[in-house]
Amino acid sequence: MAGAEWESLEQCLEKNLPLADLREVKRILYGKETRELHLPSGAFEAASKGDFELRGYGFEAAEEQQRRPRIVRVGLVQNRTPLPTDTPVVKQVTALHRRIEAITEVAATCGVNIICFQEAWTMPFAFCTRERLPWTEFAESAEDGPTIRFCQELARKHDMVVVSPILERDAEHGDVLWNTAVVISNSGAVLGKTRKNHIPRVGDFNESTYYMEGNLGHPVFQTQFGRIAVNICYGRHHPLNWLMYSINGAEIIFNPSATVGALSESLWPIEARNAAIANHCFTCAINRVGEERFPNEFTSGDGKKAHRDFGYFYGSSYVAAPDGSRTPGLSRNRDGLLVTELDLNLCRQMTGRYKMYARELTEAVKPNYSPNIMKE
Amino acid sequence: MAGAEWESLEQCLEKNLPLADLREVKRILYGKETRELHLPSGAFEAASKGDFELRGYGFEAAEEQQRRPRIVRVGLVQNRTPLPTDTPVVKQVTALHRRIEAITEVAATCGVNIICFQEAWTMPFAFCTRERLPWTEFAESAEDGPTIRFCQELARKHDMVVVSPILERDAEHGDVLWNTAVVISNSGAVLGKTRKNHIPRVGDFNESTYYMEGNLGHPVFQTQFGRIAVNICYGRHHPLNWLMYSINGAEIIFNPSATVGALSESLWPIEARNAAIANHCFTCAINRVGEERFPNEFTSGDGKKAHRDFGYFYGSSYVAAPDGSRTPGLSRNRDGLLVTELDLNLCRQMTGRYKMYARELTEAVKPNYSPNIMKE
Repeated sequence: MAGAEWESLEQCLEKNLPLADLREVKRILYGKETRELHLPSGAFEAASKGDFELRGYGFEAAEEQQRRPRIVRVGLVQNRTPLPTDTPVVKQVTALHRRIEAITEVAATCGVNIICFQEAWTMPFAFCTRERLPWTEFAESAEDGPTIRFCQELARKHDMVVVSPILERDAEHGDVLWNTAVVISNSGAVLGKTRKNHIPRVGDFNESTYYMEGNLGHPVFQTQFGRIAVNICYGRHHPLNWLMYSINGAEIIFNPSATVGALSESLWPIEARNAAIANHCFTCAINRVGEERFPNEFTSGDGKKAHRDFGYFYGSSYVAAPDGSRTPGLSRNRDGLLVTELDLNLCRQMTGRYKMYARELTEAVKPNYSPNIMKE
Repeated sequence: MAGAEWESLEQCLEKNLPLADLREVKRILYGKETRELHLPSGAFEAASKGDFELRGYGFEAAEEQQRRPRIVRVGLVQNRTPLPTDTPVVKQVTALHRRIEAITEVAATCGVNIICFQEAWTMPFAFCTRERLPWTEFAESAEDGPTIRFCQELARKHDMVVVSPILERDAEHGDVLWNTAVVISNSGAVLGKTRKNHIPRVGDFNESTYYMEGNLGHPVFQTQFGRIAVNICYGRHHPLNWLMYSINGAEIIFNPSATVGALSESLWPIEARNAAIANHCFTCAINRVGEERFPNEFTSGDGKKAHRDFGYFYGSSYVAAPDGSRTPGLSRNRDGLLVTELDLNLCRQMTGRYKMYARELTEAVKPNYSPNIMKE
């Protein structure tokens, strides 16, 4: 099971395959090739100085007569948590704010219009511990917590839409927690929030210990640069979740995640990309990087010995397009910024028959439903 | 764009990658490794003599106390059409019957319990021509046509469930055509039929010229070896289609297809596999092989010159499991039989929230639906 030492699938294929074979392998694995984006040299210098990867790609749409291209640049940020998990909470949050501030600065010089950070980006992914404190102290208000105010400043300063996935404390409802993403307009106004709809109950993903399934349905956010939605982490396993964001008009669906190798690395190239194909929209899969060790040992419901680390977060963030093509992934082992230029004209509808499914699904969820099974 | 000369993704990776890298690449691309199945040497000899590929793999499920393993062997057949498309219809059909009879014979010696042939297996995929004759003459009754009778004999002889996708002529409804799969019990009885629910309207896939979207919903067939369903070809692009088969109880969903490189080869490894993950069932993706040239030239709605061939059917049939793992594909360029041993205990339910989706989808298909869009 590869950890930090194995950089990426793409790098391995490029190093080892003869050119003609590489072309065919890429065609089968990645679809129509994305073009490399020309980004300012100052941005690469800043990324190198800041020790994070910077990659840029562009998708093309066919020229149309009645619509002009609808070009938007999105930025996906993947990163490790810079401080040990036993550092005081406020120090950890501040260090993450500084890290994201620096990466967003570079995104701005690359012309990014919409930026999205990883799931619960202000904290280590501590739900594996099942401990209350100090982890729940990372939660904050989705309306005016310090992280939202920080993101509002970023948005105003850089004229950029900011998607900020946090652990939310809902003061108006008994201080309960939610796994939430806040969408902030490039004006700096909070456009609204959306919540994680599917909560894992598997292995170290003890998230249902902390918060419940989201209750906000499938909101889509109309920004100056296009209509966006946020399908948080585990929701990517659920095709209906992607579908409802698409039916509500999303042209870009972000999937900020925190996921580790043993559970999901072979699913990672599949699910967000399948959602882009099935729902004729762009999908942006973001995962964190590195290992996070916790002060107290815990078990994983798999009969193995107690341990202190969650596993290896393998990065590999990427963007997929409605035509099935996709960018290469960021690396498995470095902080990174993926800048991608989309033409939203690539998004179109097709042969969905949704009415039939609404009827069948409505029947199927009734307690007395009799499945359509034919027997001899 | 690779044609027949490029054998397969797997063969290319195995030839070129160092062993340690190959292991990681396979882990990311294919998930948990499938074991090679021990098949009788006589079967390999017969396959070699009959000039078709024979591969065997097995998936494992964790041992349980309250259920015994539920082992079933499925056979996927991919093949080219052996005779030129201008040969008399009855000769083409007979040649295909003989070819399938020989491959099924080998499947029987490999212990296959359920076999599935490719989409519209008794004919060239002639819908690109938009011509009425002779292509509609390949249609036959799904209850007692010569192909169904042929399959009933196979089923009885080999004690095997046979899934036979054909072009159906529906004599009871004005002789209309359907793209249908007939499921025949190992007893030889016709268990029933199911129809293609989504019809492509893209490029050379002029199928809506010939038949309409299926009207039989999402039937599942209870066989002695497990509950199966058939999602024909283009239906694999529609997550709701897979979902409804799963909700009706399918443990194995076959996806007999006919698809060519330019349109779909980069989607092929994604969609059936995503459906297995999302719906906790096995999926079996089957594609035909080779090139089919037609007597009269036709155009493809892409501004390019008229031509006589459809494109390259790239084979690559495979089976995917609920845990995201999959078998390697059959080759891109040879007829083949893929024998796969499944333990149906791998199929399980998870965190679906279907009731919420039934409600949202029912609202969304109403003519006056107002999408959930948040604006500044």
